[in-house]
Amino acid sequence: MLPGPTNVPNRVMRAMLAPIINHRSDDFVELYTDVVDKTQQVFETKNDIVALSASGTGAVEAGVVNLVKKGDKIIIPVNGEFSRRLSQLIEGQGGNVVKLETPPGENSTFDQVKEAFDNNKDVKAFYVVHNETSTGTMVNYLDKVSDLTSRNDAFYVVDSVSLLGGAPLPVDKWNIDVCMTGAQKAIAAPPGISPISVSAKAKKYMIENPPSTIYFNLARYFKFYDGEKHTPFTPALPLLYAYREALSIMLEEGLQNVFKRHKVCSDALYTGLSAMGLTPFVKKEEDRSISIVALNYLDGLEDKTFRSTLADKFKVLVAGGFGDLKGKVFRVGCMGEVSPYHVMRTISAISSTLAMMGYDVDAKAGLKTAEEKLKAL
Amino acid sequence: MLPGPTNVPNRVMRAMLAPIINHRSDDFVELYTDVVDKTQQVFETKNDIVALSASGTGAVEAGVVNLVKKGDKIIIPVNGEFSRRLSQLIEGQGGNVVKLETPPGENSTFDQVKEAFDNNKDVKAFYVVHNETSTGTMVNYLDKVSDLTSRNDAFYVVDSVSLLGGAPLPVDKWNIDVCMTGAQKAIAAPPGISPISVSAKAKKYMIENPPSTIYFNLARYFKFYDGEKHTPFTPALPLLYAYREALSIMLEEGLQNVFKRHKVCSDALYTGLSAMGLTPFVKKEEDRSISIVALNYLDGLEDKTFRSTLADKFKVLVAGGFGDLKGKVFRVGCMGEVSPYHVMRTISAISSTLAMMGYDVDAKAGLKTAEEKLKAL
Repeated sequence: MLPGPTNVPNRVMRAMLAPIINHRSDDFVELYTDVVDKTQQVFETKNDIVALSASGTGAVEAGVVNLVKKGDKIIIPVNGEFSRRLSQLIEGQGGNVVKLETPPGENSTFDQVKEAFDNNKDVKAFYVVHNETSTGTMVNYLDKVSDLTSRNDAFYVVDSVSLLGGAPLPVDKWNIDVCMTGAQKAIAAPPGISPISVSAKAKKYMIENPPSTIYFNLARYFKFYDGEKHTPFTPALPLLYAYREALSIMLEEGLQNVFKRHKVCSDALYTGLSAMGLTPFVKKEEDRSISIVALNYLDGLEDKTFRSTLADKFKVLVAGGFGDLKGKVFRVGCMGEVSPYHVMRTISAISSTLAMMGYDVDAKAGLKTAEEKLKAL
Repeated sequence: MLPGPTNVPNRVMRAMLAPIINHRSDDFVELYTDVVDKTQQVFETKNDIVALSASGTGAVEAGVVNLVKKGDKIIIPVNGEFSRRLSQLIEGQGGNVVKLETPPGENSTFDQVKEAFDNNKDVKAFYVVHNETSTGTMVNYLDKVSDLTSRNDAFYVVDSVSLLGGAPLPVDKWNIDVCMTGAQKAIAAPPGISPISVSAKAKKYMIENPPSTIYFNLARYFKFYDGEKHTPFTPALPLLYAYREALSIMLEEGLQNVFKRHKVCSDALYTGLSAMGLTPFVKKEEDRSISIVALNYLDGLEDKTFRSTLADKFKVLVAGGFGDLKGKVFRVGCMGEVSPYHVMRTISAISSTLAMMGYDVDAKAGLKTAEEKLKAL
């Protein structure tokens, strides 16, 4: 139950055993075009897809270095580790960042974003972290942003590393120019493949204004794909096979069913754990993440003892807080394979761990309310 | 018999099935410190090691963006696709490149390198591609270069993506500051992990002068490793397991034995194929690569038909020429698992393919001379 890398189904693990092939062969073209096609289905887009052999941060970096040039004005909400990192990357490229800062666990509102667009007509792009893994916060107005970006003729870039596949993010419908994710989160593949989608408008810009480096230079990837359906560099083949298998599993289940399962499971986790007296870190319900359930520790509850008891006695792994939140919150991943079984077992294990540590929690209330919520599936 | 990615032993493939773990856990620390330790043994160094989740090009880029700043003078021999790419990367960072250009298949001599150092006292670094995959050329004076780099107080950087592990490259003995390779060549792991070694002097420089990007910013990797033995970003876990297993296999065989096996096998390939009338593309014997055996096509021999017959009828995969050499040469990988069996079967299959295509080649001479050479093992 980590906030990624998440559990990987055996079917996906076994896909890695396919033979190592020549990445300049017809076999590779078949594999990679299928990867692109299935990624397009999950991103709900007809845009170009590049599946980078790198972690999610690599895809995020690609989303920045191919678009941001010195002096470009960029609007970006910042309220946690990953949005701060994204902002630093943009500044590293010489971007002139208009930061909409809010405290961890709170999102900028759509009105604040709109105001920033009103005050910065010359904005080049809007960058946003869809789901802030460090705090379990999720932005819920991404459907409305393209009204602003299209009005100001700005690029719209979404870092959805820790959520895409777990909640709706229809790239074409919402007019997202560049969208990045990682395979090891809601898609439930092993870490190491990070796909990115690029609109025709952004692609044109990238080809005309390539960065000075190579590995994340997307123009190179377009050239190889548009030519012979190859990648410019040797890709991480076993991970590509695994990633394709994970996408197949999602598409077999049906995207809408996958989204619903994620939503219902996280609802059940929030409700069940709240009923046991644990409070969600994110106060406003509409700001809470579907894939990362962050909870405040009870008074005096020691992070390391709690998480190691949970792991050693019950083999349930959760993550601690990030940065300033270390020791103050813990985070339960709700992504990929997550199912009612995972939810019930996690609530059960947390209640038992708390009991062993001397806390008097109402396990029955937690389990019953969660079970109730799970009936929606 | 590709020039990478190469065959991966089953033992290495199966290592990928280890469970996906938390990359902030003690289990990960155990895995990653072991990866670092075994990489140090194969690099013959006590220097810092970073195992990047990226292809070899990623490690090469890291070796450039962390050292080269605008205006820095860099000496680099250029005689093929990969040395040209390295040179472009350096220029992309604003480096002032002193190129020692030679035709494909020929190396700059040590005297030419020495002359470049004599004429450029202010050189910041010497970059060299150890083994030019595109032409099957190998530089054989890397042991002597540190006399020059230490005299001029320059960094010494070796891109050994397609050879390290297949031939001696003792990083500490030869005073190499930065050395990069890829897991999918002589180490015989799947592609996707690319290790890099960094001397204390280069590490200090990198920490004090970090690049503006994140994914290949080695200072971040040092900080996480020196702190908690972690990596800054989610690593490609299954590939790390596989890479560790491949290193273990090499160390069990013994590095010197691995080097000898590569040398004897490539000797046998050059000799056997020459005895059948195929001429090595690289004229000077001392310039020929140990891991990539490049051969000129016989007059009128069509690349695509030759390679597809070899693949379809005999399941032996070799690569064509690169860039300008397309259709003129073919390249046989001699790396990783390569053994007398692979050599004999390749020569046999090539002789049969040539016979099927109507060429009158002396298969017996090819097989007998190769067999003779292989007795050295």
